[in-house]
Amino acid sequence: MDYAESKPSQVRELIRNGIIDGPTTGMCNGYAQGNLVILPEELSWDLLLFCQRNPRACPLLEVSDAGSRSFPQTAKGSDITKDIPRYRIYENGICTGESTNISSRFEEYQKTKGRLISFLIGCSFSFEAELLEADIPVRQIEEGVNVPMYNTNIPCISAGVFSGTMVVSMRPIPHSKVPMAVAVTAAMPKVHGAPIHIGYPEFIGIENIKEPDYGDPVTIKEGEVPVFWPCGVTPQAVLMNSRPSFAMTHAPGHMFITDVKNTILKYS
Amino acid sequence: MDYAESKPSQVRELIRNGIIDGPTTGMCNGYAQGNLVILPEELSWDLLLFCQRNPRACPLLEVSDAGSRSFPQTAKGSDITKDIPRYRIYENGICTGESTNISSRFEEYQKTKGRLISFLIGCSFSFEAELLEADIPVRQIEEGVNVPMYNTNIPCISAGVFSGTMVVSMRPIPHSKVPMAVAVTAAMPKVHGAPIHIGYPEFIGIENIKEPDYGDPVTIKEGEVPVFWPCGVTPQAVLMNSRPSFAMTHAPGHMFITDVKNTILKYS
Repeated sequence: MDYAESKPSQVRELIRNGIIDGPTTGMCNGYAQGNLVILPEELSWDLLLFCQRNPRACPLLEVSDAGSRSFPQTAKGSDITKDIPRYRIYENGICTGESTNISSRFEEYQKTKGRLISFLIGCSFSFEAELLEADIPVRQIEEGVNVPMYNTNIPCISAGVFSGTMVVSMRPIPHSKVPMAVAVTAAMPKVHGAPIHIGYPEFIGIENIKEPDYGDPVTIKEGEVPVFWPCGVTPQAVLMNSRPSFAMTHAPGHMFITDVKNTILKYS
Repeated sequence: MDYAESKPSQVRELIRNGIIDGPTTGMCNGYAQGNLVILPEELSWDLLLFCQRNPRACPLLEVSDAGSRSFPQTAKGSDITKDIPRYRIYENGICTGESTNISSRFEEYQKTKGRLISFLIGCSFSFEAELLEADIPVRQIEEGVNVPMYNTNIPCISAGVFSGTMVVSMRPIPHSKVPMAVAVTAAMPKVHGAPIHIGYPEFIGIENIKEPDYGDPVTIKEGEVPVFWPCGVTPQAVLMNSRPSFAMTHAPGHMFITDVKNTILKYS
């Protein structure tokens, strides 16, 4: 069961009930997936500004009302704290745990410390169904692993306490299909759009393509070129640089699946 | 002198020195123009969230650092308080004056009340050069007046204290060229993108097309269809609904001209 043809609301329910607990790559073809960052209200201005200034890496799909656990525009009836397969909890910038359900942590924080705000940021998993439609292979789906992600030397524009470099995801693409892969993804800017780099990992500060900083390594076949897209793990990485007292995020590759069709997102 | 071929930095200097004081439609072909909203820091979260939730009407080009008078990403060396031909000053939601230079008001407010934050929002003037390139007429340029703008019944998504309906700009387009006008502008989402309505003003709550709520009326010729685009005056209208203690904006049609080429904005 690969859930490629499942409806987002069904998959979110399977996740909520613990039946799905792995990466969401390849699920719910045609629907946008998102990265999650949950922050205390006092840090939210800086993150919202950071996203505005770095739309390639941080295309915002939705920002919650303060204190709310729902994203009414992109996934009615969902619960931000339960509908992602795996979360990470950060205290003072250090990951202090993973969980499949953060609802009690969310409420506990709000009761004792203050309101939280949730950010949903477009994920490149969203465009993979369109790559497949164009007969462009997506290696990590073929190999059943998480997408490889790397820290780079590409600077982001700073905002308040947040500054840092871009995280990218990598897909090996047959060289003859690279231009088409650029064209297909460029049409989808709300889920990272066109690649940020093609072909030379060392130019963007990646030393060893076989050792991703997040996710899993994938095979690069003869005649294939590594192509790099901006990644929604960027705000997590940047966030942790600034050692916020508290934050919760999705675990890399374990995304929030929205009810928004990619085709509609192209024009919104 | 229509300044269509002038560089933005030159035109901004002419504006700063009072030599240009009219609407900026038709100026600096190929460069993005923006709407300005300046607000006290305490209202800025709600406006940033409002823009995120309503990107058709409020596509953000840049948000300043608190207290700063510059937009370093879109117009290096510019001064937000001097480089627009005409500004409006609002107190408790009421327009209490217009001015060609708001630098002293800006500094006075900051000295006595607190920091201000400036929002630059894409303007549909930016895509007019591309319409002209496609042999699509732009009536208010032909007639030498400001673009007609209307209040509508199209709801915006609320954010904090801000809620209201969309303001639109209207251009009459020969019926055979309407599809091309949609395609040309849909490719430019950061400056409002595709039309929001085509052909029937009454469907969107406009009673009298000859009496725009902002700007000037223009001639609609036989065989032409009124086409409506989301307008960056929307945040001003919404803002005033909430009667903020203080705000400053551009005067409708008198925009901030950036150094950012529209072609680059398509891919950023």
